[in-house]
Amino acid sequence: MALKNKVQSILIPWWRKNTLLSSTSRTLNTFATGSDNRIIKSPSLVSLDLPDEWTSSSTNCNAPSTNKLASEETGRVIDGKQIAEEIISGVACEVERMKKTIGEVPGVAVILVGERRDSQTYVRNKIKACEEAGIKFSLTEFSEKCSEDEVCDAIMGFNMDPSFHGILVQLPLPQRLNEEKVLDVMRLEKDVDGFHPMNMGNLAMRGREPLFIPCTPKGCVELLIRSGVEIMGKKAVVIGRSNIVGLPASLLLQVSDSFFLSFFHAISDATELRHHATVTVVDALTSNPEEITREADILVSAVGVPNLVRGSWLKPGAVVVDVGTYPVEDDSCEQGYRLIGDVCYEEASRVASWLTPVPGGVGPMTVAMLLYNTLESARRIYKFV
Amino acid sequence: MALKNKVQSILIPWWRKNTLLSSTSRTLNTFATGSDNRIIKSPSLVSLDLPDEWTSSSTNCNAPSTNKLASEETGRVIDGKQIAEEIISGVACEVERMKKTIGEVPGVAVILVGERRDSQTYVRNKIKACEEAGIKFSLTEFSEKCSEDEVCDAIMGFNMDPSFHGILVQLPLPQRLNEEKVLDVMRLEKDVDGFHPMNMGNLAMRGREPLFIPCTPKGCVELLIRSGVEIMGKKAVVIGRSNIVGLPASLLLQVSDSFFLSFFHAISDATELRHHATVTVVDALTSNPEEITREADILVSAVGVPNLVRGSWLKPGAVVVDVGTYPVEDDSCEQGYRLIGDVCYEEASRVASWLTPVPGGVGPMTVAMLLYNTLESARRIYKFV
Repeated sequence: MALKNKVQSILIPWWRKNTLLSSTSRTLNTFATGSDNRIIKSPSLVSLDLPDEWTSSSTNCNAPSTNKLASEETGRVIDGKQIAEEIISGVACEVERMKKTIGEVPGVAVILVGERRDSQTYVRNKIKACEEAGIKFSLTEFSEKCSEDEVCDAIMGFNMDPSFHGILVQLPLPQRLNEEKVLDVMRLEKDVDGFHPMNMGNLAMRGREPLFIPCTPKGCVELLIRSGVEIMGKKAVVIGRSNIVGLPASLLLQVSDSFFLSFFHAISDATELRHHATVTVVDALTSNPEEITREADILVSAVGVPNLVRGSWLKPGAVVVDVGTYPVEDDSCEQGYRLIGDVCYEEASRVASWLTPVPGGVGPMTVAMLLYNTLESARRIYKFV
Repeated sequence: MALKNKVQSILIPWWRKNTLLSSTSRTLNTFATGSDNRIIKSPSLVSLDLPDEWTSSSTNCNAPSTNKLASEETGRVIDGKQIAEEIISGVACEVERMKKTIGEVPGVAVILVGERRDSQTYVRNKIKACEEAGIKFSLTEFSEKCSEDEVCDAIMGFNMDPSFHGILVQLPLPQRLNEEKVLDVMRLEKDVDGFHPMNMGNLAMRGREPLFIPCTPKGCVELLIRSGVEIMGKKAVVIGRSNIVGLPASLLLQVSDSFFLSFFHAISDATELRHHATVTVVDALTSNPEEITREADILVSAVGVPNLVRGSWLKPGAVVVDVGTYPVEDDSCEQGYRLIGDVCYEEASRVASWLTPVPGGVGPMTVAMLLYNTLESARRIYKFV
């Protein structure tokens, strides 16, 4: 029991501790406070493995309102929106060619459980992108109170339906439902989110290929590649170790293949190329995170804690990929909230060489990669080359 | 094509480059030379993903002849042999209890292909340990020239045989054989080596449990735990990223549960304890490996390059786990060769707080963990608690 108590007291993540200290000598953690924005309590997509509540983090450090940088900024913006549009446009061409050649189109079935506003927005964006690319889309919605069996039955239905080549359960599920049980029902060949442990194992292991690479980390790496960022031999730090972003991002940076989007690239003969970054994963219990991030040539932050990463956490010239999307109430926005990232954008833009904004960075890439994975699944099933 | 050539020229690992440089300003890499020992060409167990030949590495840096340290040494030896014996003895008690209670004993089937001397030694050690613990053992040997189908047929036979609860294919297989195809035939429930991608995925992912944790990295972590080394919040560096050691070791250090050997421990109420180390994986293309290893509180080296890790690569007080086992011809040994590790033992023992010798460190633990995994498999199948 004594040990257990000790463990519990240790298990407070450092970013939580920061918010608990009223005065601290750790100057790096003096988050600006005093924001009027109320942080919406539901955790962001990438913060599933973290405590739900963040009481006093700042939400007003940055506001990347446009992609144009102010004069004092040095970092170039990685325009995820534009790159995603290029990819979606490429997918649309391939879908069109498939339709003309074999009379089939890719199809993806999305299952949404509950009423989370951020999940609803993500799903809406996916529907819109599928329509744009000519991909068939089906949305099955369940109430917050549905049973695990209902969700599993729906998945099994789509497993058998040959017109759907991808199935996606919008995460997070209500805590009541067993995510592992639900996801494991899915046919591996339709797991376009790449969250099946078999896909994750094949992603982790050398000499093996997963059927699908999870969309968000795949989007991150594609942003790096398309911005001409060299990954091989570089030091990369990933903050956060969630199953859906941090873990697969760390695996991808170690062994990611650029050939996964080869049909869009001119470098399609580089199918053997692997990006061997030296990756460190910083998690909630890392004792000196800012010392580690300051060593990073490439920093990927995916914890969903607003403005966690300050300018002083960065090595000059670092490339910063901000996966954090934290919803903050904002009546001036159409949805009633806006998203802010893990990285203090204003400060980071003065230190980094490249960085992704929130919104308009990684988010659109997640959607583009879902479309890409769905297309790839259909190509595989129809043996369409 | 130009890109491919460029990539190939970059893809020489730094430790290979070291041996190619006749004079160098990198003082850390001035391996002592002039050994009379001929390095046996077959790569060690953990160096499967590295080039096969190391022409000029030193083999005479260290000689941990006994577990007693000389006066100038500060590091305490982690006695893997003794810890392994304790574990095997614990397994033997459980096997005896199982036999008395339900009239069954655990069984493991080992498949050995080819004539590698080191593989033969490993298998011999496993047989001996199984006999000691009362575990049923079967060895199926194939010649170097056998077909994939023959090996797969043997595995499928054991898949169906209820008296075997574990199946192990001694790696590496001859290069001619497709390791992935062979390993994937194995029933997940009998994969006591934990090399199936489904087990690896479940090891990597939070909130999931693999059926089996690969024996060598599991042995490494158990050595740390039993030596009282705190892992949580510490910086760990893993050198090497092989599927069988480096990768699973890096995953385990991030999320390893101490409960996997809980029935031997007094701390069995700590089943929720996870060791959140901050892990960096150094691979063949890391540009400044020694700078990174000098930051490590815990260093695990698993590349199979003799004396790669010098004393100057270590942070004072670091804990060093040497997984490297490189066979060097030595007529004075019974088998005609002896094993040397990745770490220059003599130098490391003056800097490290704890370190494992080679032999007598991780090696015996691999065997003990195989027995433990086999017992666990039988317990699961028979629902024996």
